[in-house]
Amino acid sequence: MITVLLALMQENSAVLDVAKNCSVVDEAARKAAAAGAGVLLTPELFPVGYAPLPVRTELDPEILPGIRERLAGIARRHSIALVYSLPVVTAGQWHISATLVGSRGEELLSYSKVHLFGPEERKAFSPAEDAPAVVLLDGIRTSLAICYDVEFPETVRAAAARGAELLLVPTALGHGFENVPQILLRARALESQLTVAYANHCGVEGGCEFLGGSVIAAPDGALLAAAGTGPELLFAEVSAAAAGRARNAVPYLAERRPPVYRAWEEALAQEQAQEHAQEQAQEQGP
Amino acid sequence: MITVLLALMQENSAVLDVAKNCSVVDEAARKAAAAGAGVLLTPELFPVGYAPLPVRTELDPEILPGIRERLAGIARRHSIALVYSLPVVTAGQWHISATLVGSRGEELLSYSKVHLFGPEERKAFSPAEDAPAVVLLDGIRTSLAICYDVEFPETVRAAAARGAELLLVPTALGHGFENVPQILLRARALESQLTVAYANHCGVEGGCEFLGGSVIAAPDGALLAAAGTGPELLFAEVSAAAAGRARNAVPYLAERRPPVYRAWEEALAQEQAQEHAQEQAQEQGP
Repeated sequence: MITVLLALMQENSAVLDVAKNCSVVDEAARKAAAAGAGVLLTPELFPVGYAPLPVRTELDPEILPGIRERLAGIARRHSIALVYSLPVVTAGQWHISATLVGSRGEELLSYSKVHLFGPEERKAFSPAEDAPAVVLLDGIRTSLAICYDVEFPETVRAAAARGAELLLVPTALGHGFENVPQILLRARALESQLTVAYANHCGVEGGCEFLGGSVIAAPDGALLAAAGTGPELLFAEVSAAAAGRARNAVPYLAERRPPVYRAWEEALAQEQAQEHAQEQAQEQGP
Repeated sequence: MITVLLALMQENSAVLDVAKNCSVVDEAARKAAAAGAGVLLTPELFPVGYAPLPVRTELDPEILPGIRERLAGIARRHSIALVYSLPVVTAGQWHISATLVGSRGEELLSYSKVHLFGPEERKAFSPAEDAPAVVLLDGIRTSLAICYDVEFPETVRAAAARGAELLLVPTALGHGFENVPQILLRARALESQLTVAYANHCGVEGGCEFLGGSVIAAPDGALLAAAGTGPELLFAEVSAAAAGRARNAVPYLAERRPPVYRAWEEALAQEQAQEHAQEQAQEQGP
């Protein structure tokens, strides 16, 4: 059976102290590789710190390629695949991205955040529009999403519909949102029948207190691992077979009814357009 | 503030013993009304028992209108709105339906199950295709879905997109599926920001052991009430304001990106069509 040991880093990052943050990733990669892990997942924007406006105004985008090289070097040195999250600047627009590099440091997959959370993030970044893609990682079909994206079942459905058996999710979730990892993340894994790993910050960064509480949820909704509120390295054995077993037990993905859902959305859009037209007609009077 | 006290009946039904099952509903309606409840939710196919094939082969559909009259009479007598679930036969096809009658016994809303569960249910019934509609019940925008339907986030999204603040769900969930009420139902309430009540059978009917474990989940994902494994009458105060508060706190419904999701689905359908065409070309050879 094809399995991979997944490691998940929950840590505190220092806003705009790239050297320090990369050292933290380096040390986690060393430990994860020593424990036999094939891939290490790290939190959203970890190398630069989660602080959208300071990052957007004070980070020189010219240094981003150097940070990426350094992170690829960490993967190569410890011979472990790595998911990191950084800003990416495309045609003048800043996005929040996640990148999967293989154990030789080669880029395998990238994704940019589609659902931005809150006014600060929307001021600093632009929302992306590409669906999460899928790549084979150690024989397991793997995809990426970021933070708020996975609170929307639509995102995880899109990854699962493209064949994902493992979804790796860098996040930056504040204190007080325990229901997101404990309820929503487990529901995403269960309803779309894939393993979901969700790596959060902990402690305070830029005045914001993070929840910690990172989780790895199995395709049957079981919690494979869950972190407390401090720095932690979680591990879980992940396999394509687990997704297959869940899909055979209750075939959610096969029993979805996409043409019916599309008809529902079209009918609603028509109703709303008619209501809008009636309102306008009433405003204009006889 | 507009609130309604919701009562939820978890009970064991006797397969094809309509008189007995209606007495159980009658007694629950009496107790619920005495406690001040404005609406009573009962489990899937409760008046006839949850046993798809025996119901399909042995129930004379001619008696269905009489059962409906009897149930409307229970609502009228106790002056309480009632959700019941019965087979409905439309153009020769049997569906599993749910009906909301008002406290004067008048039919306010009906819904037929879109996602059928398992081979027995699919043998006995046909899947419906209409979206869950919404009606005002005591000032709260209310919708219906049935059992397996709510395991699909798409169903609850459709109700929420039509304005539902309360979703009433008759179900028949077997032993061993604890994750459905405990994880999926709470996620549905949280992600689509409405109160969800999920009323299950308990005990053994037609050889199947039911889970019980009925829940009422709030728009912030909190459990308002949860049943054990035996007969129980649950209560929870429901308001439109609770949905409004959740939608203000984290605007999931407003921050969905339906045109992006549609583009993802269309892109996937195109990819799959191209793969299919390539496979066919390869099969035909040069």
